[in-house]
Amino acid sequence: MSPVQTAPGTVVLKYGGSSVADADKVRGVASIVARRCKAGEKLVVVVSAMGKTTNHLIELAGSISPQSGHYKREMDMLLATGEQVSASLLAMALKDLGVDALSMNAFQIGMLTTAAHSSARIRDIQSDRLRTELDARGVVVVTGFQGVTDEGDLTTLGRGGSDTSAIALAAALGCPCEIYSDVAGVYACDPRIVPSAKKLEYITYEEMLELASSGAKVLHSRGVEIADKQEVELYCGSTFSDERGTKIVKKLPEWLEQPVVTGVALAEQIKVNLRGLPEDVTLYTRVFNELAGRGINLDMISIVSENGKAAITFSVVSGDMENLRPALSAALPGVDWTVSVDDSVSKVSAIGVGMQSASGVAGRFFGALAARNIAVLGTTTSEIKIAVLVPRDQGHAAVDALMTEFGLKDE
Amino acid sequence: MSPVQTAPGTVVLKYGGSSVADADKVRGVASIVARRCKAGEKLVVVVSAMGKTTNHLIELAGSISPQSGHYKREMDMLLATGEQVSASLLAMALKDLGVDALSMNAFQIGMLTTAAHSSARIRDIQSDRLRTELDARGVVVVTGFQGVTDEGDLTTLGRGGSDTSAIALAAALGCPCEIYSDVAGVYACDPRIVPSAKKLEYITYEEMLELASSGAKVLHSRGVEIADKQEVELYCGSTFSDERGTKIVKKLPEWLEQPVVTGVALAEQIKVNLRGLPEDVTLYTRVFNELAGRGINLDMISIVSENGKAAITFSVVSGDMENLRPALSAALPGVDWTVSVDDSVSKVSAIGVGMQSASGVAGRFFGALAARNIAVLGTTTSEIKIAVLVPRDQGHAAVDALMTEFGLKDE
Repeated sequence: MSPVQTAPGTVVLKYGGSSVADADKVRGVASIVARRCKAGEKLVVVVSAMGKTTNHLIELAGSISPQSGHYKREMDMLLATGEQVSASLLAMALKDLGVDALSMNAFQIGMLTTAAHSSARIRDIQSDRLRTELDARGVVVVTGFQGVTDEGDLTTLGRGGSDTSAIALAAALGCPCEIYSDVAGVYACDPRIVPSAKKLEYITYEEMLELASSGAKVLHSRGVEIADKQEVELYCGSTFSDERGTKIVKKLPEWLEQPVVTGVALAEQIKVNLRGLPEDVTLYTRVFNELAGRGINLDMISIVSENGKAAITFSVVSGDMENLRPALSAALPGVDWTVSVDDSVSKVSAIGVGMQSASGVAGRFFGALAARNIAVLGTTTSEIKIAVLVPRDQGHAAVDALMTEFGLKDE
Repeated sequence: MSPVQTAPGTVVLKYGGSSVADADKVRGVASIVARRCKAGEKLVVVVSAMGKTTNHLIELAGSISPQSGHYKREMDMLLATGEQVSASLLAMALKDLGVDALSMNAFQIGMLTTAAHSSARIRDIQSDRLRTELDARGVVVVTGFQGVTDEGDLTTLGRGGSDTSAIALAAALGCPCEIYSDVAGVYACDPRIVPSAKKLEYITYEEMLELASSGAKVLHSRGVEIADKQEVELYCGSTFSDERGTKIVKKLPEWLEQPVVTGVALAEQIKVNLRGLPEDVTLYTRVFNELAGRGINLDMISIVSENGKAAITFSVVSGDMENLRPALSAALPGVDWTVSVDDSVSKVSAIGVGMQSASGVAGRFFGALAARNIAVLGTTTSEIKIAVLVPRDQGHAAVDALMTEFGLKDE
């Protein structure tokens, strides 16, 4: 996947499901792509399945078998058809506009992945034919979201998979990647939560990663990780308008005044409080291992010792909570532990590389929450993030308070 | 594709689109297959796309581009998804029944074809993985209708393609092939034309080929040709009942009383009469070559000479009749020809290997038509077939007369 020199003007474009939701939209994307192609760019266009296709296929599988979700290899075989449909249709629409496009699926572009069906990871891209076709034609349309194992089985890359496909292709081709969707870029906060949230002109990979893993849905963190590691120039913009989008970069440009906080994210979580443990790090380790082994994914963890007993408080991002007590029993034989679970909390995170050089950020952060009487149930910090757990019904108010405090709303 | 020894009890089963039209039917096919698998058979199950899927995909392409039909490589990419959906769903339904089935597409079974998109021909089947999976699991579900070129492009095999896939796989595996559909076997005539037509217990490859190419739609002639050449045991039966179907064999069993006529077929054609040609075989050849070159496919041809002038009468099976006059002009420069076209004729064929040993068949054939006052506009015969052109509005009556004369109706 090491980038080989690619013709100048090569770009990977990615269009999500809402951008190719129906015939009109497919033709709309085709006309944008055709225009750029005719202007001399060489374009790899990565597409998702049309609109709700993936959901319809999942429903179809559900009507065949209530277990279908467990038949991951067959589900991948089924779901991979969605992108093959949209890729071939977009190629047809491009041909109508006089562009000699070709669609290629995961087999054809050699998108090799691990065999972890439904959440496969890209291992290599054997892009020889892709390069040849791209040189000859100027446009190749590629199925996102899917890969193929060494044995030739189809895989899918899991949530945000088409972004990952596009960014990995850009890394392999050594060219920039532009991600188009129905959202015009990256906002300081999800506009569904704060409609007046500012759109960002720039954001660093690091901030984007923190935002994505803190609940922002604009770009999946796996893709951003690849972009960061392989230094892929990334841009997020709107399919449906010429409005300026967001550049995701290694470092903000020098001339830009660094904001202290770049973005705020909100995510629903579950808070667990485990008490009555002996002060023994081996035990804590066993607890974390057992939880991970049963698919319970933790986020914020704090451990407090008092009077020779320890309490662990952690938040759960996702996982089957029915596995919680069995996991604790397995980890803590002979220990007289008690546990309480609060499933109505949210995590609010403020993120910004500017925090590293600014002072008094924590004071402003907690002051803004206190002014609105928001309860803080837990907290963690990193160099570029402060996060708190709050009661779920205070989540939006907390986000709004921080957006106002750090000037992240449009006037 | 030369058959390698395969485990005894290996069978290729093929289920058409109406057999897997919805979730209930997919589960129904799964329960039949699971029962046979548990009884010890090793099964390769070839499936078509569900119900009207292929038509819906063609419509979808039409909504993108009025030219979509010309983008054959992209159409194949699009249409190939239909079988991948039904194959993966059937594999899931089988897993629900405790059978460790696996679906495989054209890439995965190495179904190599020519690059003639939309009407590709099978060149080879590199079935190593298919054999391995079949041995390990007992059931593999395979996408019909599709293949892949040496370059890795998806192709489709054209009309009747899934039958061809199934029969070619059976030839490669050296095992029998059973074709299941919503029709319970091969009838002496299409039951939509003659509802009381007898179902045949046996029919020879040769008769089946003549029937298929004379308009019977039950089994496509390409598959039958492969079965004939590679001596694949073929069986046609109903997906939805246990009623006995039809065996297609090299020779009828000795104990069976040979019928004189096995089947009767009806097909709409166009009759063309070309007059005023010099008696010159070179000219005739040029006419036929020009017509073929412009995609006009001929069937019955007769040439009559009188007073130094020749008239050619032929019937057209398919093709764009707008190309007729340009083809004739190109073939006959300086010749004072005239042409008349009758597009309301049908061809009625009676087929039977028994004709070779019976006498008086022609007398019975024409006598039956005469008794019903049916006009005969043209005729051809082969060793096992007599065919006539009749006015299209007399086609059904002609078929009925022959079915009665040769005892091909159920009492």
